[in-house]
Amino acid sequence: MPDPRLAAQLDFLLTCDRLKAVQRTTRLHDGSRFENSAEHSWHLALMALTLAEYAPAGTDMEQVMRLLLVHDLVEIGAGDLHFDAAAKALNQQHAAEAQAAAQLFALLPEAQAAEFTALWQEFEARHTPEARFARALDALQPMLLTWGQTADGAGGLGCTETFPELTVQRVLELKRSALAEFPQLWQAAEQLLREAERAGVIKP
Amino acid sequence: MPDPRLAAQLDFLLTCDRLKAVQRTTRLHDGSRFENSAEHSWHLALMALTLAEYAPAGTDMEQVMRLLLVHDLVEIGAGDLHFDAAAKALNQQHAAEAQAAAQLFALLPEAQAAEFTALWQEFEARHTPEARFARALDALQPMLLTWGQTADGAGGLGCTETFPELTVQRVLELKRSALAEFPQLWQAAEQLLREAERAGVIKP
Ligand SMILES: [Ca+2]
Repeated sequence: MPDPRLAAQLDFLLTCDRLKAVQRTTRLHDGSRFENSAEHSWHLALMALTLAEYAPAGTDMEQVMRLLLVHDLVEIGAGDLHFDAAAKALNQQHAAEAQAAAQLFALLPEAQAAEFTALWQEFEARHTPEARFARALDALQPMLLTWGQTADGAGGLGCTETFPELTVQRVLELKRSALAEFPQLWQAAEQLLREAERAGVIKP
Repeated sequence: MPDPRLAAQLDFLLTCDRLKAVQRTTRLHDGSRFENSAEHSWHLALMALTLAEYAPAGTDMEQVMRLLLVHDLVEIGAGDLHFDAAAKALNQQHAAEAQAAAQLFALLPEAQAAEFTALWQEFEARHTPEARFARALDALQPMLLTWGQTADGAGGLGCTETFPELTVQRVLELKRSALAEFPQLWQAAEQLLREAERAGVIKP
């Protein structure tokens, strides 16, 4: 590889291929297998493209897409955690992710490493409108896969085998901080759970 | 679901989940399994973010990302084809994809259906700078996975079991129209193949 800058970028992109082997705790909508973090990231970026109108006016959707494409890369070194994991596990996860981020982004040319690190940190900090909207999509997507039904009646299978203790109340409690500031998305999420409750795949 | 517009968009997004079940002919970099089209689309959008500097000045990288996130969705109805497939199979594929696109995008609200159809058509037509750069990344990515090695020596396994007849000459011939107009990427692709040839995983 003659150009060391491009060689470093391609090395980074090849290392990122490992995100396809990071298994999430959410199943695909058809229940056939667990989702991986790479296809999850694609789904979130597609959601940003499709649901842009529910973000506050002035939200930079290109930045939302950037954040979503990059936000899970640190799982290559650290793995994924369920959103209901204990606080201690979440703290350990945070330290592992910071280390993973440093290692992974260091593969890039210096200025670009700083740029990608900043994207990850912006997503994690959840202060900017872009990070908040990205985070809301990240909270909504597994709910769609787990309890959502398509118009033709597919899906809505629930996640009974993995987390039988989940209830509508518990899910709403855990999702509120990410979703409630986007009223239409929050209403859709609530509705989704109520329908799943009626269908008997989650307890109230 | 109270808001029919949002309900339609969520139905579309849930249907798009099926892209995760569309298997490509390329293996992951570690050779462990075939790649699916959803994680492939994520990888391409990440490449756009990382390799933006190799696009001509003025290329709209947000549009490149949009094109890449959407470009494979039509495979949900039509499946993926290897880039070396016969012309007849490629023609049939084109008709199947047009039908799949019409069906899938019709799930969206009307104006948005037109917008997504336009993205797909722009990618397919390969006339705009954005579509041409997106197409180049789409051509380069499977080469990276198949013949690329990370700096720590992982990968570069080749694709001998599926397409033993592939040679460096044949790959270059097939990739030239997508890649040659981006000199640094084209040079990297050539270099990659020459190294794979030296390693004995592809014939000259
Ligand atoms: Ca995660």
